[in-house]
Amino acid sequence: MKPYAVGIDLGGTNIKGGVIGRDGTVVLKKSIKTEPDGGVEHVIQRIAGLVEDLVAEGETDKAEIAGVCVGSPGPLDSRTGVIFDAPNLHWLDVPLGDLLEPLVGMPVFIENDANAAAYGEAWVGAARDSKCTILLTLGTGIGGGIVINGELWRGVTDTAAELGHMVIKYDGPVCGCGSRGCIEAYASAPAVARRMREAVESGRGSSLKGRILAGEEVDSKMIYEAAVAGDALSQEVMEETGRLLGIAVANFVNIFNPDYVVLHGGMVKAGEMLLGPLREEMAGRCFGAARRGLKILPSALKGDAGIVGAAGCAFQRAKDSS
Amino acid sequence: MKPYAVGIDLGGTNIKGGVIGRDGTVVLKKSIKTEPDGGVEHVIQRIAGLVEDLVAEGETDKAEIAGVCVGSPGPLDSRTGVIFDAPNLHWLDVPLGDLLEPLVGMPVFIENDANAAAYGEAWVGAARDSKCTILLTLGTGIGGGIVINGELWRGVTDTAAELGHMVIKYDGPVCGCGSRGCIEAYASAPAVARRMREAVESGRGSSLKGRILAGEEVDSKMIYEAAVAGDALSQEVMEETGRLLGIAVANFVNIFNPDYVVLHGGMVKAGEMLLGPLREEMAGRCFGAARRGLKILPSALKGDAGIVGAAGCAFQRAKDSS
Repeated sequence: MKPYAVGIDLGGTNIKGGVIGRDGTVVLKKSIKTEPDGGVEHVIQRIAGLVEDLVAEGETDKAEIAGVCVGSPGPLDSRTGVIFDAPNLHWLDVPLGDLLEPLVGMPVFIENDANAAAYGEAWVGAARDSKCTILLTLGTGIGGGIVINGELWRGVTDTAAELGHMVIKYDGPVCGCGSRGCIEAYASAPAVARRMREAVESGRGSSLKGRILAGEEVDSKMIYEAAVAGDALSQEVMEETGRLLGIAVANFVNIFNPDYVVLHGGMVKAGEMLLGPLREEMAGRCFGAARRGLKILPSALKGDAGIVGAAGCAFQRAKDSS
Repeated sequence: MKPYAVGIDLGGTNIKGGVIGRDGTVVLKKSIKTEPDGGVEHVIQRIAGLVEDLVAEGETDKAEIAGVCVGSPGPLDSRTGVIFDAPNLHWLDVPLGDLLEPLVGMPVFIENDANAAAYGEAWVGAARDSKCTILLTLGTGIGGGIVINGELWRGVTDTAAELGHMVIKYDGPVCGCGSRGCIEAYASAPAVARRMREAVESGRGSSLKGRILAGEEVDSKMIYEAAVAGDALSQEVMEETGRLLGIAVANFVNIFNPDYVVLHGGMVKAGEMLLGPLREEMAGRCFGAARRGLKILPSALKGDAGIVGAAGCAFQRAKDSS
């Protein structure tokens, strides 16, 4: 059994990579700029270069590495390794697996980035030893991953776990996906900022009012900080965000009856300000038996979830394909 | 391999039972009254009597029967065979498995009734050979079942697939479960009747208006029939029901990316009047890749789904426990 795998977390701004041990230890990690404007080949060359650097600096040998797995934004086909559409990278129908494998000379696997994070949390993170983990990544969008009995559920055409696009109010705000009232349209970082702006524009007072009315971009981090500093409207928006997420989590609990729900992403730093209202709203909307043994936790792997999870997928898929 | 199993579908009004072959064939079926007012022991004696009659009349031998599985309303524990709470039967914490097994002298298994129906459809029904089936039972309530790679997903405390209690409008009508805006509060048979009554009470005209205002109970079947006969309001209520179910199905498709969604229950007889708007609404709310290869179908096993599915569970669980 080869002792290491390389996990890559491919984003629109940065490419993170790590050499990861079989117990999930991060032996070495590194981050470089993605430079998507350089084109598909340029980005793939950069990924290959990052892999080479990790192997060299980690003082490992390719013969000791089970495989390389790239967690990528989707939609994609994890079996063929084709990325269908990654707007942040300006990629359309890129056969990443086939292009990268000859450059790195090791088996290459492709995984949806939120799936990779979910796998990581269930493998060695917040949901270690879980029977069923539901992960939500809260960021510019809301992504999701489903791990059942230690295996990712990817769906029949690799499109499962689009958990951000579960409708919680069918006549709610229009979502980027074309539907209405998806949880992403309420609780992604830009949606939280939009709700704050709308409240101010409707005449509510806030310490952020001047900046918002001046047209300044106010992000969810600023709202969280204003809430901590005592701004009542910011506190209200944060609490409401927790409640809206609680409605979504209640749905997942009634559907999956999981043992773990893991929340990942910058907004989770708000801690109990978000999780308290989330748990309260959830409890009022789901079956008692489903709440028994349920844990709702922030990510334990945090910024490493992508690389650790991708490496975990590489270990599993290298084993399955051998 | 024993060639038969007995499937029981335990309801508040009737107990249905069948001797089922390994290919899902119904060798013999029978239905008796439940008589729940006679008490727990009386009902269990009636189940045992039905099993004896089926074995005798089917000219089979107990040695040829892999096991008996009872599909029961829940919540329940499928592992211990305890029914926690079945309001239609006035049952609380009834150890059905332990009480029934000595009476029938064969292995007894207990399964949630909607799970049994889902298993049946995925085994030998509308979703034969599926990788992922989502079943909805549309009746007095809305039940659900999830079959992934030929196995029921029951959740970590046997409470998964409460699909009727997925919220589609968080500030919608109060649901029997305590939440608000669950799909059950919109599209169960009583909810459809309520929406029709509310429309008439708000002043809308309908061929059913006189009966509704006279306080007569108007059920979803009467609304369907009025719609077929040309009543515009009934047609509108049926179409809206399809659209509301389409929102729920879109959520399941974005979450699971299944190959089959199967609809079961009396209301499904409305056919395209329900399924047309359902498919249209669904298509506008989910990812194109998730709709590829997706089939939304009415139950193929219809009234036999419960007994066939329960027998299928008996075959599988007898094998797993041997």
